[in-house]
Amino acid sequence: MQKIPVGVLGATGMVGQQYIALLADHPWFEVRYVAASPRSAGKPYAEAVAGRWHLSRSYGKGVGDLMVADANDVQSALAAFKKGDCAFVFSALEMAKDEIKALEEAYAAAGIPVVSNASAHRWTPDVPMLIAEINPHHADIIPQQREQRGWDKGFIVVKPNCSIQSYMTPIWALMQKGYEIRRMFVTTLQAVSGAGYPGVPSLDMIDNIVPYIGGEEEKSEQEPLKILGSVQGGTIVNAPGPLVSAHCNRVPVVDGHTACVSLEFGDKKPSIEEVKAIWAQFRALPQELKLPFAPEQPIIVREEADRPQPRKDRDADKAMAVTVGRIRPCKLFDLRFVGLSHNTVRGAAGGGILNAELLKARGYL
Amino acid sequence: MQKIPVGVLGATGMVGQQYIALLADHPWFEVRYVAASPRSAGKPYAEAVAGRWHLSRSYGKGVGDLMVADANDVQSALAAFKKGDCAFVFSALEMAKDEIKALEEAYAAAGIPVVSNASAHRWTPDVPMLIAEINPHHADIIPQQREQRGWDKGFIVVKPNCSIQSYMTPIWALMQKGYEIRRMFVTTLQAVSGAGYPGVPSLDMIDNIVPYIGGEEEKSEQEPLKILGSVQGGTIVNAPGPLVSAHCNRVPVVDGHTACVSLEFGDKKPSIEEVKAIWAQFRALPQELKLPFAPEQPIIVREEADRPQPRKDRDADKAMAVTVGRIRPCKLFDLRFVGLSHNTVRGAAGGGILNAELLKARGYL
Amino acid sequence: MQKIPVGVLGATGMVGQQYIALLADHPWFEVRYVAASPRSAGKPYAEAVAGRWHLSRSYGKGVGDLMVADANDVQSALAAFKKGDCAFVFSALEMAKDEIKALEEAYAAAGIPVVSNASAHRWTPDVPMLIAEINPHHADIIPQQREQRGWDKGFIVVKPNCSIQSYMTPIWALMQKGYEIRRMFVTTLQAVSGAGYPGVPSLDMIDNIVPYIGGEEEKSEQEPLKILGSVQGGTIVNAPGPLVSAHCNRVPVVDGHTACVSLEFGDKKPSIEEVKAIWAQFRALPQELKLPFAPEQPIIVREEADRPQPRKDRDADKAMAVTVGRIRPCKLFDLRFVGLSHNTVRGAAGGGILNAELLKARGYL
Amino acid sequence: MQKIPVGVLGATGMVGQQYIALLADHPWFEVRYVAASPRSAGKPYAEAVAGRWHLSRSYGKGVGDLMVADANDVQSALAAFKKGDCAFVFSALEMAKDEIKALEEAYAAAGIPVVSNASAHRWTPDVPMLIAEINPHHADIIPQQREQRGWDKGFIVVKPNCSIQSYMTPIWALMQKGYEIRRMFVTTLQAVSGAGYPGVPSLDMIDNIVPYIGGEEEKSEQEPLKILGSVQGGTIVNAPGPLVSAHCNRVPVVDGHTACVSLEFGDKKPSIEEVKAIWAQFRALPQELKLPFAPEQPIIVREEADRPQPRKDRDADKAMAVTVGRIRPCKLFDLRFVGLSHNTVRGAAGGGILNAELLKARGYL
Repeated sequence: MQKIPVGVLGATGMVGQQYIALLADHPWFEVRYVAASPRSAGKPYAEAVAGRWHLSRSYGKGVGDLMVADANDVQSALAAFKKGDCAFVFSALEMAKDEIKALEEAYAAAGIPVVSNASAHRWTPDVPMLIAEINPHHADIIPQQREQRGWDKGFIVVKPNCSIQSYMTPIWALMQKGYEIRRMFVTTLQAVSGAGYPGVPSLDMIDNIVPYIGGEEEKSEQEPLKILGSVQGGTIVNAPGPLVSAHCNRVPVVDGHTACVSLEFGDKKPSIEEVKAIWAQFRALPQELKLPFAPEQPIIVREEADRPQPRKDRDADKAMAVTVGRIRPCKLFDLRFVGLSHNTVRGAAGGGILNAELLKARGYL
Repeated sequence: MQKIPVGVLGATGMVGQQYIALLADHPWFEVRYVAASPRSAGKPYAEAVAGRWHLSRSYGKGVGDLMVADANDVQSALAAFKKGDCAFVFSALEMAKDEIKALEEAYAAAGIPVVSNASAHRWTPDVPMLIAEINPHHADIIPQQREQRGWDKGFIVVKPNCSIQSYMTPIWALMQKGYEIRRMFVTTLQAVSGAGYPGVPSLDMIDNIVPYIGGEEEKSEQEPLKILGSVQGGTIVNAPGPLVSAHCNRVPVVDGHTACVSLEFGDKKPSIEEVKAIWAQFRALPQELKLPFAPEQPIIVREEADRPQPRKDRDADKAMAVTVGRIRPCKLFDLRFVGLSHNTVRGAAGGGILNAELLKARGYL
Repeated sequence: MQKIPVGVLGATGMVGQQYIALLADHPWFEVRYVAASPRSAGKPYAEAVAGRWHLSRSYGKGVGDLMVADANDVQSALAAFKKGDCAFVFSALEMAKDEIKALEEAYAAAGIPVVSNASAHRWTPDVPMLIAEINPHHADIIPQQREQRGWDKGFIVVKPNCSIQSYMTPIWALMQKGYEIRRMFVTTLQAVSGAGYPGVPSLDMIDNIVPYIGGEEEKSEQEPLKILGSVQGGTIVNAPGPLVSAHCNRVPVVDGHTACVSLEFGDKKPSIEEVKAIWAQFRALPQELKLPFAPEQPIIVREEADRPQPRKDRDADKAMAVTVGRIRPCKLFDLRFVGLSHNTVRGAAGGGILNAELLKARGYL
Repeated sequence: MQKIPVGVLGATGMVGQQYIALLADHPWFEVRYVAASPRSAGKPYAEAVAGRWHLSRSYGKGVGDLMVADANDVQSALAAFKKGDCAFVFSALEMAKDEIKALEEAYAAAGIPVVSNASAHRWTPDVPMLIAEINPHHADIIPQQREQRGWDKGFIVVKPNCSIQSYMTPIWALMQKGYEIRRMFVTTLQAVSGAGYPGVPSLDMIDNIVPYIGGEEEKSEQEPLKILGSVQGGTIVNAPGPLVSAHCNRVPVVDGHTACVSLEFGDKKPSIEEVKAIWAQFRALPQELKLPFAPEQPIIVREEADRPQPRKDRDADKAMAVTVGRIRPCKLFDLRFVGLSHNTVRGAAGGGILNAELLKARGYL
């Protein structure tokens, strides 16, 4: 199969680097266009990231030689698009929210689909916020999005915040089996890579934790409602629940967000054994379609008393699986568990790639 | 004032060392008797802890020269008692629960009061589990304890688990002002010193967290009920609430347990400002009595968005204060906050010393 | 090709697990026999390591079902050998040195070759201490070893200590080009995985370093002399130099030993550029033979000012390459550099596997 | 005694905060003037550092209320000087080197003595670089400095880089006893607080070390020569030795620089026991003068195999002592040892305060 040429916007940043690394041997996609800030523009990618490459995995040889374009220059991307070097872009832009919003729209308007990792368009009503295993049908708003915007081939899809991914798929798996979830308490212990580079100072993370991450609790409480919402007319209407109370902490972990969760079901309540079985057996569209980045088993259930743990479980199944453990009754609600996922793979670039695979399989790319 | 001679049982262990260090310049107490396992017995204390002293603060010169006794040898303590070298003992014994239980009773039966840090007697109905600011009146069960046991001067008091201290005093301060607390969710991020030495392997704590501490969640859910209970006849009867759901994690922090808490009040609910005022103004018996280890302000309220933090707040007011922050409404219950206290000072040796000061001030020592 | 069945002694320990994980997809070898302490014996491997598996990479499905044998029971291994389940063993035994020495000899005497990771036989004069890129010809002492011991097919080869591997191959590459190295200063910053599990307590590794590792400096000063020695008669005679002064520290890093090295050359001294070129171009027998675990480029030269770094460079080329950087003149000697290698892969199990591949290619297995 | 009013320039930065905290209960000095960048100027100190205070120790109540001045505004300091609020200043300025140089000279020219922690003037020939135990006599260049500059009462003294303090006093103690030190190898493991705040990103310090600190090796190799130099005419002439080769690493430690040192003596060589005795008995002018910040015993000798360690030894004797251990012969040179000191106290603010105490005792302040 001829690989699809793709571009990465914000290619020199933390998430951008993760995209470049993860796409190195992708069976469907090939990075042929990279764009970043004016500071990096005009340099070969290898030079632009020299001394700033944060991953142990390297970028592919071809990518190192690519000339970095200015991400603000949509015309440059359009030229690449026309030349057949950039069928769509992954957006890992790091700018002010408003700038990202406008810029992603400019790419889409120019006919270039945008699969975004940025938070700018998460609450735009006609932009789907996709977790491929949960709401792949939200992608079907794309034709309406195009129509409403007057866009021909371009469109925008986004993915949600990284920290909710450690528990959203487990929640959904239970809901899908008919178990309403009314309320949930979540306390997260989040890795520093989620804050980018330089990000969190080491003086705050040696022999310390920081019990606060700006904006994170609000996102954790609101984003699930859109993901679980429904497409009505040309807009995505929030689900009424579950109601969430989130407490987000930064801890001295490189990668991997851990979440301690308590769930209150509706009137129908599953047994602990039933929950474990539902999670272990959960499969969704990405698994049916055998998408390259889809984990074989989206939810891995661990029986040991002290798992999941970030360093031991974050890399499970290409770092795309969610690992759950400590599944037990709650003294106040119905069920307690601990969920964990890799925040820069499953929660960021890997999740974006899986979304693109889904869109390709569904004919949108 | 002539200082009261005291003994420390388990003096070479982690908590024992903390007792020795904290008592170095104590205005009322002076360590004149140290006892540990047979392995250490017969050596000068300095030799017994050589290469095993874990604190930056050192032991006093006099203590280094004390000959370590065998903690199992109650007669030896009794001889010291009679010689005027040991009016009572702090117990930081590290043995099997049953052995500690029997041994502490043997000391008490021999006429030597035991102020214990061990968990063995926490659920013995006539043994008070004291937090000096919360339930000092539980000490008044001592005469009944003596009578029931046939003990003359000896008695046993204990202190609760270290991790609940980061939120129990704040909870109590609100209850005392007439605000019933029905239910609470607690997620703790606990320091490694709580597991003793060698304790948690570094392979589990570098770039990692462990979402499990054996027995800790059960203690966190049950101990508050006894602390808030009432003395009825010769026994302490549990309070009916609050109902607690606890999730306990081990994190890469040396000292200082952090707790993320959500509270559900009864029908009467304080405002956020009222909560802050109650906490900042809270004073209790140790403050009235001006006990040496009593923090001036038992609950310190921080207004910064990202506090309390273990390394920055654990040492507040001789490491005896509880620091609270992020006081805000809860999306599901009524109030959320983060509490923090020093687990080996406030939560262990320092708390034990404060209990002894209270008992002295009340005439029991 | 039919895979060669191999056994792993000490299969449940830290290094044993690393062997199991690394051999999971090995093109030549297949683990068909696992042995450990009597405590684990008689259980399926999966059960024996449940809750004690320390790697993110898992063991293969087949290995999980293998019944663990008692490593002390050579007859059991012999039976597996005769059944065709164990052509040779990797020894990752963790016992007293004398016991390991005797036990490895018993396996060899029984006709089972032993490729060992243990230190017990490092100083046995007729046992080669191999680094496959440096002294592969030392393997040619095997026939003499057999003859001297009266062994038929069995033999023992060992590998050196993990920490010297971060600089021995670079040293050798220079020597091979005719540059004598007279003296060298080495200061190591070693990862905690080198101490096994539970190993170093987290209380010693959070906000701390420990400037001492028992026995490590002596090994670092002596082992190079044997590795660089020559086979004379049936014994390996030490090289006269280089003379080494080593200072070994334990630091809060999971995997990857870093070494700061200063070299004093003999009369002939290479330029900095020559050193870089020699290292970048260095290839040896494992590369010529294209052994599966051989890194393509054994020494990777980094030009950035702040590399190598453990987390970013330890996994280079299957975690089998040595990465060097900060190559610069020394104010006192001639050359300074920083070397880094993965201590449990290149420095332990991976190095052992490469040795076995070499022995196979040379006809000894 | 009436306390001497002092000012702190750069009072809101990392070292500035340390000055403020350490001076809180100083018996001779009282902070009555604080200056910082224009951003902080005009605010009360408490407000200027709100959310940016990095120490567990707090600033004194009086200081919190002080209005922050603009450090560039020498007239403002002069007004305070005239009002009797600022007899001299501690400089913890964080600006470009040239700006600091000019600004410190402007203060001195205005008649305000400057006791500086900045590196700007370390190589100015008539500015002494003081370690109070080593070269207190260098202060005697002050009259010549004033004369050469045409300054009346103002002058500038500086202190050397933090990392060399972990071994310079031990070196000096041996030199003073007649043992020439010809050459020395030093490898440092330096704490992150040395890089200020935000300083080193946590992504570089979790499960990692960085074997490079810009400019640090050069300083470590050159500064000892000035400290050990002699005042000749109006200038300080470097000592000819010792020759130093330094390798500097950043490690995940909050406070406390560790140094692994190898020494080559001249023809006369002390025994190990003699070295230990010389160090344990070393006392210097600050001890004779009983200066408030002088450690009673400037060099603490530890006999345990695994000390000194940063977390356990950095706070020794008000964090002003140097702790040494692992004193043993060197395989290549004569003596090896490990030295440790607190980089932000002994190596920065505490060292500056001790210098000021010395200058006061000598009549310069």
